[in-house]
Amino acid sequence: MAKDKKLVEQITSMEEDFAQWYTDVVTKAGLIDYTSVKGCMVLKPAGYAIWELIQSQLDARFKETGVENVYLPMFIPESLLQKEKDHVEGFAPEVAWVTHGGLNPLQERMCVRPTSETLFCDFYAKDIQSYRDLPKVYNQWCSVVRWEKETRPFLRSREFLWQEGHTAHATAEDAEARTIQMLNVYADFCEQVLAMPVIKGRKTDKEKFAGAEATYTIEALMHDGKALQSGTSHNFGDGFAKAFGIQYTDKENKLQYVHQTSWGMTTRLIGAVIMVHGDDSGLVLPPRVAPTQVMIVPIMQKKEGVLEKAAELKDMLKAYRVKVDDSDKNPGFKFAEQEMRGIPLRVEVGPKDIEAGQAVVVRRDTREKTIVPFAELEVKIGEILEQMQQDMFDRALAHREENTHTATNWDEFTDILEKKQGFIKGMWCGDQECEIAIKEETGATTRCMPFEQENLGETCVHCGKPAKKMVYFGKAY
Amino acid sequence: MAKDKKLVEQITSMEEDFAQWYTDVVTKAGLIDYTSVKGCMVLKPAGYAIWELIQSQLDARFKETGVENVYLPMFIPESLLQKEKDHVEGFAPEVAWVTHGGLNPLQERMCVRPTSETLFCDFYAKDIQSYRDLPKVYNQWCSVVRWEKETRPFLRSREFLWQEGHTAHATAEDAEARTIQMLNVYADFCEQVLAMPVIKGRKTDKEKFAGAEATYTIEALMHDGKALQSGTSHNFGDGFAKAFGIQYTDKENKLQYVHQTSWGMTTRLIGAVIMVHGDDSGLVLPPRVAPTQVMIVPIMQKKEGVLEKAAELKDMLKAYRVKVDDSDKNPGFKFAEQEMRGIPLRVEVGPKDIEAGQAVVVRRDTREKTIVPFAELEVKIGEILEQMQQDMFDRALAHREENTHTATNWDEFTDILEKKQGFIKGMWCGDQECEIAIKEETGATTRCMPFEQENLGETCVHCGKPAKKMVYFGKAY
Repeated sequence: MAKDKKLVEQITSMEEDFAQWYTDVVTKAGLIDYTSVKGCMVLKPAGYAIWELIQSQLDARFKETGVENVYLPMFIPESLLQKEKDHVEGFAPEVAWVTHGGLNPLQERMCVRPTSETLFCDFYAKDIQSYRDLPKVYNQWCSVVRWEKETRPFLRSREFLWQEGHTAHATAEDAEARTIQMLNVYADFCEQVLAMPVIKGRKTDKEKFAGAEATYTIEALMHDGKALQSGTSHNFGDGFAKAFGIQYTDKENKLQYVHQTSWGMTTRLIGAVIMVHGDDSGLVLPPRVAPTQVMIVPIMQKKEGVLEKAAELKDMLKAYRVKVDDSDKNPGFKFAEQEMRGIPLRVEVGPKDIEAGQAVVVRRDTREKTIVPFAELEVKIGEILEQMQQDMFDRALAHREENTHTATNWDEFTDILEKKQGFIKGMWCGDQECEIAIKEETGATTRCMPFEQENLGETCVHCGKPAKKMVYFGKAY
Repeated sequence: MAKDKKLVEQITSMEEDFAQWYTDVVTKAGLIDYTSVKGCMVLKPAGYAIWELIQSQLDARFKETGVENVYLPMFIPESLLQKEKDHVEGFAPEVAWVTHGGLNPLQERMCVRPTSETLFCDFYAKDIQSYRDLPKVYNQWCSVVRWEKETRPFLRSREFLWQEGHTAHATAEDAEARTIQMLNVYADFCEQVLAMPVIKGRKTDKEKFAGAEATYTIEALMHDGKALQSGTSHNFGDGFAKAFGIQYTDKENKLQYVHQTSWGMTTRLIGAVIMVHGDDSGLVLPPRVAPTQVMIVPIMQKKEGVLEKAAELKDMLKAYRVKVDDSDKNPGFKFAEQEMRGIPLRVEVGPKDIEAGQAVVVRRDTREKTIVPFAELEVKIGEILEQMQQDMFDRALAHREENTHTATNWDEFTDILEKKQGFIKGMWCGDQECEIAIKEETGATTRCMPFEQENLGETCVHCGKPAKKMVYFGKAY
């Protein structure tokens, strides 16, 4: 019982210490375990199953837009990484270097991919010849390595799982259209599947991807008022194409450079789900990414007919991801365990329920109980799951709105940072010096220049010079 | 057109040069591309889509037996790799070593996983405490790296994709049962999905996995008479558990070591599919792993109504993986291209067919043509695909039977090797010296000691001493 007990130990409350609450949840909900390599974690079954649901649903959305999956090597020769100047400067300081193959030193060292632009470019340079070969809309699911100093499970780890799309197009317009299209796929996925509202916008030049002309982002607000960059989509223009010589013959038989994009989402999304929806009892999973959507808990399960009825209900609910907890733990313990694991619905069924021909359905997020006759259970469960998915989104949106503030001058800006949490909307002059000063003085960074611009005044919130853009500022993970 | 033409260039015939035929097919069917890192390849859309079909169907079979997916890090610290003596001796000479993280040398170098036994053991040592925690039946889909000297696409590459199952059990019996269960899953998958018959058996001690008590294998025969080890399942007993200290408290509160297994299948299976089913026109894919099962080819597609009818048929056939080739190439070229790519069925539809209310269905494997009225097309296509899947298995089985020979003494053995190809069944004394001598003298290795033993005589085929086991010998990839 010592081991069982551990699972439902009190976790630190969010108010007391949000960072500790997060660490407690990722381990006690059974999502990850630490390993002997710092910053590399084990994704345990409960954690990996969430990733599988993210992957399958995101992949289906990709394929609807014509994406094809491929797999490129995990190693990048040093000379290849160095071909695009900004890119190598951005990534070289944080890559893991392979220097030996077996007992022999390599002639040229290779890094483990931190991202695969250079590999795709090397491949496209051979694979693309004619306008007939365009567009190429390829994606891969893989792991990447970035040798970060500070690490946190899901949010920043040295190895993480992701997808990286890499496309090549005939024209600048086509590349820009694909960049925006994928950002919209990401935003829609976050809102519909993860029940997590996002702000769509463009990164400032300071914050853009190493080698990109433009980086677009979706930014979400966590429960503690910090922002999390949840997906990015980059337009490379023809910069990489020129560095790697990726040219095609157009219809007039002229050589042209391709225009490229890339876009990625990672296991970081699991961290976002935890921090947007979790509470002091543990994880709360949106039904669409819950590996188990319904847990049936038999009450007084040794009484005749209870386990049989539980099995019957499981069979009746097979349209959902359903399990029966028929372990020999007591019901109170089972309830706490399933709350910790964030299972959306609990169905309680005991001798009295069986007599009355009904079960008790309990929502994880609100703990609302509904008594449902067996005959209506299948339909009702579907309705409650849908309602829960929607309510979770609505609550997250309300939280973001409550925690989004407007600052028109520097006093207001610092006052908000001192007394409140969340996003700050403000006007910005567009100068990188000003952006850097804001970060140095407050720790807040430019999250994005949102697509939905508002006019909050004529002057920069920091320096007072004429404003160019409305920006979301915030402290971020 | 230069680029289009290249696709259907003549490929080397199998008879002339099987190895060159293989290389031609993997590249001209668009499965892979080479990269600047020797032995690391690009899995292009046509190749990766086969892997996706293998993965989804194998994963579903795993989950039916209670397997849960996880993800462990790609790096193994050197000290961890060294914990099990046989294992490190088997793998250390062929691993890739990471020595630097960013700009700094690592305190301890790490290898990129060549397989993950040591990582799973390290994890299980922490994760398993009580009999209640057993069994653990975990699997991961990932890539692994083995720094081989000789490489060939799919068959032997420095990085390849695979799944690796790693399980822990309370008893030796449970571990042995899981080892055999997974071998059976593999055999069934190869036969039902890949239309590839396999021999199930046990590896000799010489050929078993580094650190295993027993290795079981499925062996398939390629078109050229060489064997291919297609999947292995290992019983580790408690050897790794003792090296890593993986213990649990049993019901009597006593500490016991767990018993472990591991089992894996790789992208090598794609090489097997090519070499079992391919012909001189290119790839031939079994319908169950064909990314496109049906290609509709409009004939005289500029005539009114032809492309519309093709689109209509595509819609009618949406129960299958179906595409229309409406490119501006001529039909003969399209036919050749789809043959190269191994698409199981071609549906031709032109003005005369439309008038007659029918289409022509052509099988890739036999080139048999069937005229099918539009109204029957959906049902008939399903029947033909099923029949083709079965016929492909039957032909592969007949090929294996024709190419399986029996030798009762050394003269017969060498005579078969000289004049024929394929498997040789023979009795073996069980001595490793004899096994090594056979390999050195002929290049043939022990493929397995089949579960279905036959008594072919009383003496070893090589040394004439009393025989202990019937063995399949063969030259192998």
